[in-house]
Parts: sequence; structure tokens; C-alpha cells
Amino acid sequence: MKPVRLDVNIPGRHYPIHIGRGLLGQADLLPHSLRAQTTVIVSNATVAKHYMARLKSTWTGSVLHFLMEDGEAFKTLDTAAALIDFLLAHKLGRDATLVALGGGVVGDLCGFVAAVYQRGVAFIQVPTTLLAQVDSSVGGKTAVNRPAGKNMVGAFHQPQAVIADLATLDTLPQRELQAGLAEVIKYGLIGDSNFFAWLESNMEGLLERDPKLLLEAVYNSCAHKARVVARDEREAGQRALLNLGHTFGHAIEAHLQYQDWLHGEAVGCGMLMAADCSARHGWLDGDAVQRIARLLERAGLPLAPPAGLSAAQMLDLMRGDKKNLNGQVRLVLFDGIGQARVSADYDPQLLDATLQAFCKPC
Amino acid sequence: MKPVRLDVNIPGRHYPIHIGRGLLGQADLLPHSLRAQTTVIVSNATVAKHYMARLKSTWTGSVLHFLMEDGEAFKTLDTAAALIDFLLAHKLGRDATLVALGGGVVGDLCGFVAAVYQRGVAFIQVPTTLLAQVDSSVGGKTAVNRPAGKNMVGAFHQPQAVIADLATLDTLPQRELQAGLAEVIKYGLIGDSNFFAWLESNMEGLLERDPKLLLEAVYNSCAHKARVVARDEREAGQRALLNLGHTFGHAIEAHLQYQDWLHGEAVGCGMLMAADCSARHGWLDGDAVQRIARLLERAGLPLAPPAGLSAAQMLDLMRGDKKNLNGQVRLVLFDGIGQARVSADYDPQLLDATLQAFCKPC
Repeated sequence: MKPVRLDVNIPGRHYPIHIGRGLLGQADLLPHSLRAQTTVIVSNATVAKHYMARLKSTWTGSVLHFLMEDGEAFKTLDTAAALIDFLLAHKLGRDATLVALGGGVVGDLCGFVAAVYQRGVAFIQVPTTLLAQVDSSVGGKTAVNRPAGKNMVGAFHQPQAVIADLATLDTLPQRELQAGLAEVIKYGLIGDSNFFAWLESNMEGLLERDPKLLLEAVYNSCAHKARVVARDEREAGQRALLNLGHTFGHAIEAHLQYQDWLHGEAVGCGMLMAADCSARHGWLDGDAVQRIARLLERAGLPLAPPAGLSAAQMLDLMRGDKKNLNGQVRLVLFDGIGQARVSADYDPQLLDATLQAFCKPC
Repeated sequence: MKPVRLDVNIPGRHYPIHIGRGLLGQADLLPHSLRAQTTVIVSNATVAKHYMARLKSTWTGSVLHFLMEDGEAFKTLDTAAALIDFLLAHKLGRDATLVALGGGVVGDLCGFVAAVYQRGVAFIQVPTTLLAQVDSSVGGKTAVNRPAGKNMVGAFHQPQAVIADLATLDTLPQRELQAGLAEVIKYGLIGDSNFFAWLESNMEGLLERDPKLLLEAVYNSCAHKARVVARDEREAGQRALLNLGHTFGHAIEAHLQYQDWLHGEAVGCGMLMAADCSARHGWLDGDAVQRIARLLERAGLPLAPPAGLSAAQMLDLMRGDKKNLNGQVRLVLFDGIGQARVSADYDPQLLDATLQAFCKPC
């Protein structure tokens, strides 16, 4: 199976995404300008055990590494400060390159530090979860959390390259694979009904990790995201569609204090709630909502928020979302599968009806 | 005395610098797009006492304020986190505008938070010290400190406007005025020998705060900086000249743990050391070094590092500077007054001779 290459064409900051099996250790995938620089690989112990040695072999020179704790709860300013102090202790300058080896947590945190360390150094994404390969490693969004909200501190900082080695998915727990599929399904829902139908036909094979199907799913997802990011790096318009399900999802994650549920699980549930809300407006037909629910269910994703989160609490949490302007909650809603749009003109009572239908306070 | 306007022309991010007396409260100086947004003024108690009410009167809508502790020691990630949490507690979105009312510490910290809050919000600089008016408020460098080094965490984030009200200098302690003059002298030294000569002719009037002379000094300094920043926002080349004296100066500040000396004092001393080092290479003549020393002395600035900092310690601290590449200390040195250049080809033994001549270990 030959690796494939995609390109993200942001004016002035072009970079490649390499997708395939067995890419770790292939020095020719590194941007030439970065091969000789001081390199720091950021990862966690779980991922490092499997892949650190192979990744380090990519460089001939000295490579440092920094391990952070695993999990969203550690994607904090404190962890960022610890990494920054590590870089300072090793007297690394602006010519250092950071490499994020891991899932979205490692990628977001490492990318954020790369964005702000000495006002910005180069970094490379080496995503090892499906979610990171199809979403968080592409497009330059970096961030850490605050207690009051996820990804509330961050920067747009594009990587120099993304190296998505599908072989790293071999060690991914099944639940994390499923959570990644939520973001894959998202691309079909936003703008590609054919891809959605392809996922309906191939969900079992994807869950069994068929290499060819995974390559196709990751490639299509990255291609979609690369197109959107190239046109709207800073989310002035179309990029906001990529947040489908995220306003609902972030509220669930905040309620659970970023524990228990995976990000993709919250997004999956959020996409169904967005579909339900769209249907209540008459914008999406009931059959489409059923197709969405069935595909999410086959992917093993939860279809309702956790018990104990009331509709009123959820609305309050949604009000803190970054996409909001002037206190108005903006949502990504649908006119059909493959036809999402950002909306502020929905009926608040219909949103409330969706929240009431999905949230079970006790 | 009519206010003057300068423009910083960075491609895609054009903004004005307004300089004059009595500008606080003039709503027409605000960019139109920001007049209706939720505004948060960041300041400290000392400055707020004099100017907060007048600045707040600029907006008709509600204006929040956040006061931080005064001083470089509080330009930290912790203070940034406190401001971020304040913004989150007030549920401010991406459409908020931050306003920095104060000196370089307030401006750097507020600008950094504006750069990273929800991946970037608008901000306005209202500098109230001479140093901030002529240097730190212009050009979009924002940062906070780490124990191991100053400005080690930051971002390039341009303000939407700079409003330099010279009347705010009326309450500035004389020592801070003098420290600001160090950065004014810097512009002459870097690239404008006529301005240096003008400063030699007008130093007494500046120290007596003659309004016309202050306007001319601030205008010339900002014009110089705006030109450089427009050509080289991210310090790929010429902008590095603005760091004249800063590699030496940062070492002094780090040694003192950012206490006792003001930034401008450290920079002033650093510029003289750069001049001395240049003269030892035969690049600058002894008369020029004497002129520089005399002008700094007339401005009331220290001409040698504090006692207790040895040459070896100072060199070690200089090695941590951001401008360094591959472990080599890069310096801004002179070929003459008004002719500075970034140099890595100096003789380390002559740098050592300068350090030995200026540093008194006990």
C-alpha cells in the first residue's frame, strides 16, 4: 500500500500531509530545512513506549524528548509552562523544532508551545490516534484548556508537516478508534453526502481496521479539512462548519470536566443533537436524522448526553462557546446530509426542545 | 499643539499611532469597528488612579477593567491566566476588545492575552510611559517572562491602534522618563545620526518634559519603529537591530531577577557596552563611544552593570538570548553612530574584554 501525500496550501505557509503505513523513521518525509535543527519530541509514556525509538531514528543528530501526562486534564497552561521551562533549561533557541507524537492532547499542547516559545518555533505533527490524524493535527489550531472552558487559550500556528502513520493505529484502543470515526463522519455530514454513504457501506471494515479503508477514510477527511483551512485559516467563515457538533459536545465535556467521555464521543452526540434541532426547524427530514443516528450507533458512539446533565445546564455551558458573538449561541445546523451551515437564526424554543429531548437530569 | 498620526503598514494589518496631549477620551481615535464591542481595560492601580475614568469615558457602552500588580515580576503566565479567567468569567467571546492602559509590562501582558485568548482577539495600546510610547506599544511584540528568561513566551500580535497621550507622562516618575530616553537614544544610534545629534542638543529640555520636544522625540521614535516593523514584522532581518543593547541588558535584568533596574536602564548600559565592544574591533571610533557615554550620562542612565555581576556570569546569561542561533551569541554592534548591524562575526576575546572592563564582580 503506497503512502499518499496531500498539500495544505495556505498563502505563504504550504505544508504536506503524508498518510500511509510505516512512515515513522523515514527521514525523507521531513522538510529539508528542519533535518539539521535541534529537535524535541513531545509525547506521553503510553505512546512513547511503542513509537519513540522509531521516530527518533528519523534524525541523525541529537533528539531530546519531553513526556507529558496522558489525557485532556493535562492540556493546561501548567503543562505548557513545564515544557517551556524544559526548552529553556536546554537553552533551545528559535531554531529548535518541536515534534508532537501522540493524539490531540499532545498535538494541541505541543503546537501551542511551538506557537508561543520565543514567539514561535517550527513544529511537526505525528498524530497517533485516528482523531488526531483526521482532524486535530491538520490546520494549525493549537490550544490548552482553562477550568472554565476547553481550548480557551491558543493560537493559529501551522505545522511544517503532518506525518500520519496508519501503523500507529494498530495499538489504539477500540474506543478511541470509534471516537475518531465521529470526526470522520463529520466530514460527510458537513459537505460530502457521497462520503457519508461510503461510510454507511464500510463502517464494519473500518471498525475492523482494514488498512485500505482506513487510508481512504483518513485521506478523504484530511483532503476535506485541507481545502477548508486553505480558504479560511482563521475561521472567518467556512471553517466554522468544522465545529459541527462541537458546541453541544464542548458543553458535555465541560460538564464532565473533560473526563469519562472522549472528545469524539461528545462530538458524535453533538452532531445528532444538531441534526435533531435542524429537523425541528423543518430544515432536515426525519429520515436523514435516522440515518445519522444509525451510523453513529454502528460506530459505537453515544446518542445522548450523560445522565445528570439538565437542558438548562447544557444551554448555560453552550453560551461559553468561542463561536458565539454578542452573547448569541451560534450553531452549525443542516439543510441536509452534506449541507451544513453556521446559523444564528434558529428558534431558541426549538433548541430548547432538542435539549429537553436529549438531556435526562437524573 | 496638534496631535499627529503615524501609520504602521504591515500587509493586511494597517493601524494608526496617535500622538498628542489630551487624547484619552477621544472616541474618534478608536477604530470604528471596535467602538461597539465589549471592552476590557487592563491596567495597574497606580496608572488607573490617574487615567482609568478618563479612558473609560471613550466608550458609551459597558467597559470592564482588570487591574494587575505593577512591575516586571508580575508579567507572568500566572497573571495572564488570571486575566484569561476574568474574561471567561464574564463570558467574553472573540468579539471582545482588550485595551492596555499602562507601561510596557501592562502592554506586553495584555497583548499576549489578546493574542491567545480564544486564539486571538483585538486590542488597543494606550501607553502611559515614555518607554512604552516609543517602543513596546508599537510593532506587535507581546510576551510574558519565565524564571529562566524574559519575554520567553509570547506572540506577534498587532494592536488595532496605539494612542500615545503625552499628558499621561505628566505623572511619570523622573527615573522612568530617563529609562524611556534610553530607547529614544537607541533609534538615533541604530540608524539616524541626525536624530542622535538632535538629542544631544535637546536632552535638558526633554528631561524637563518640554511638550514640543517630547512630541518630536516620540514621533521620530515611532516613525523609525513603524518603518522597521512594516518591512520585517517577524524579525527575520532588520528588526533585530531594534535589540541594540538588549542582549547585554537582558543579562543584567536576569541577574537582578527583573528587580531594581528598569528595562531602559539596562538597555542604556547595554548600548554603551555594545559601543565599547565595537570600538575594540576598530569598527567604531573612540570619540563616538565618548559621545554615546556622555549622552547616556546626561539622560541619567547607568554606565556600568550593577556590582556583583561578573563577566563570566554575564556571558552565560547572554547565551540564553532569543536572537542566538546554534548556540552562538548574536550582537547588535556599530560601524558608527546611526550605523548598527547584527553581528555574529565578532571576536569572542574582544567581547570578553568589554565584559571584563564593565563588570565588577564584587
